Amino acid sequence: MVLENIRVVLVGTSHPGNIGGAARAMKNMGLSQLVLVDPQEFPSDEAVARASGATDILQGAQVVGALEEALVGCRLVLGTSARDRHIPWPMLEPRECGVTACEQARQGAQVALVFGREYAGLTNEELQRCHYHVHIPSDPAFSSLNLAAAVQVLAYEVRMAWLASEGQPIKQVSVAEEGDEPVMADELESFYRHLEQALVEIGFLDPLRPRHLMSRLRRLYGRSSVSRLEMNILRGILTETIKAARGEHHKREKADV
Amino acid sequence: MVLENIRVVLVGTSHPGNIGGAARAMKNMGLSQLVLVDPQEFPSDEAVARASGATDILQGAQVVGALEEALVGCRLVLGTSARDRHIPWPMLEPRECGVTACEQARQGAQVALVFGREYAGLTNEELQRCHYHVHIPSDPAFSSLNLAAAVQVLAYEVRMAWLASEGQPIKQVSVAEEGDEPVMADELESFYRHLEQALVEIGFLDPLRPRHLMSRLRRLYGRSSVSRLEMNILRGILTETIKAARGEHHKREKADV
Repeated sequence: MVLENIRVVLVGTSHPGNIGGAARAMKNMGLSQLVLVDPQEFPSDEAVARASGATDILQGAQVVGALEEALVGCRLVLGTSARDRHIPWPMLEPRECGVTACEQARQGAQVALVFGREYAGLTNEELQRCHYHVHIPSDPAFSSLNLAAAVQVLAYEVRMAWLASEGQPIKQVSVAEEGDEPVMADELESFYRHLEQALVEIGFLDPLRPRHLMSRLRRLYGRSSVSRLEMNILRGILTETIKAARGEHHKREKADV
Repeated sequence: MVLENIRVVLVGTSHPGNIGGAARAMKNMGLSQLVLVDPQEFPSDEAVARASGATDILQGAQVVGALEEALVGCRLVLGTSARDRHIPWPMLEPRECGVTACEQARQGAQVALVFGREYAGLTNEELQRCHYHVHIPSDPAFSSLNLAAAVQVLAYEVRMAWLASEGQPIKQVSVAEEGDEPVMADELESFYRHLEQALVEIGFLDPLRPRHLMSRLRRLYGRSSVSRLEMNILRGILTETIKAARGEHHKREKADV
């Protein structure tokens, strides 16, 4: 079922009650896949109490140590964010978030809705693992929603998008050739590591003064829906680049060029 | 201010925590008028705790004995309801509720959003005091939202309607930075030439057997709306790559890495 392809990921939750509230919010809207990244306290009676009948969601919850584990298999990652972070990132409103998540889920892709810590949100590094950031419009003077309440709003918009899409033909993404489908988030992460390595190797990235290079590159490739075939090409380029930097490559004779 | 004309009315709330959660949800969305009809326990430390900074809303809350007192002065009353009540009533979805409430509030009318008891909702008599009933779409198998979560959803839709009506563009564009604009087509062409050169230099592209490599890369970057800043980065990478391939780059000491 479509909604089963959408997972809610809670990162570093401090208050177990919020985990319960989130589980209830999810189940109310037909979502069921919950992943907890490094929760302060879980399982917990408080979570059960606030889940108010959504205990199956709690029992089925995966608990992992880092965000990247929570995103394995995901083709689309949407993370909540306050606005005005240092580097602008493609932003979605909750409504667009719901529509986008639903579209992808209908095509069989795994989608993650990522929520941060109650007081600190997501780290810059975690935000960079997201294809889009979602900001829930709120009063700037008092802008931070309760975690379970934020889950409720996005889950509600997902359900609204899903209800609207039911009975509509699934927009078939023409997979023109094999390898055309976008890569998973974890594969993209491997690519970034490889890319960083290459950039250090050629002397373009100074690991002591990385500045914002990698986040700018993540933003570029993150929004490009890099396909499997393209990823293979890019990684091939990186491999050869590293070899070339180490003097190990096969240099073509000038005459050939 | 428009949003001051919209009051949230909680009838017979059992859990003081929910009153706090509702206050926070309201304040997040710019609402401030809270009325409590026969609350089980108020004031309460639990309410303050869950209000998480919205204590002004709690302090300003009116406490009355019956719903009709809470509705004095209201021109429009919207009450939450599960579907399938005994007598069909004009129903609104949360989105229409937000739009309708906002329209009336802009004309100076007092509007009430009425929420019922956690376990029993509103009585038939109370429901009949409402002009419209509002049902938040939910999974029929698990349809009852937490009270504060329900307040969050309706308050969110009110704010969305209000933002739309204020002439503010709903689509919130993240603050662009200098260099964010996409490059011109001819600049992109220069980039592809540079890229091709680098790929030949590192031995990844065989000019005698180019196959479809460049067209695949063009397809990737072409759809990515590469910005000026990103282009500068990519061209810098290509320049260093070519140098590295020629043995001309500054190799970082392993110790630095």
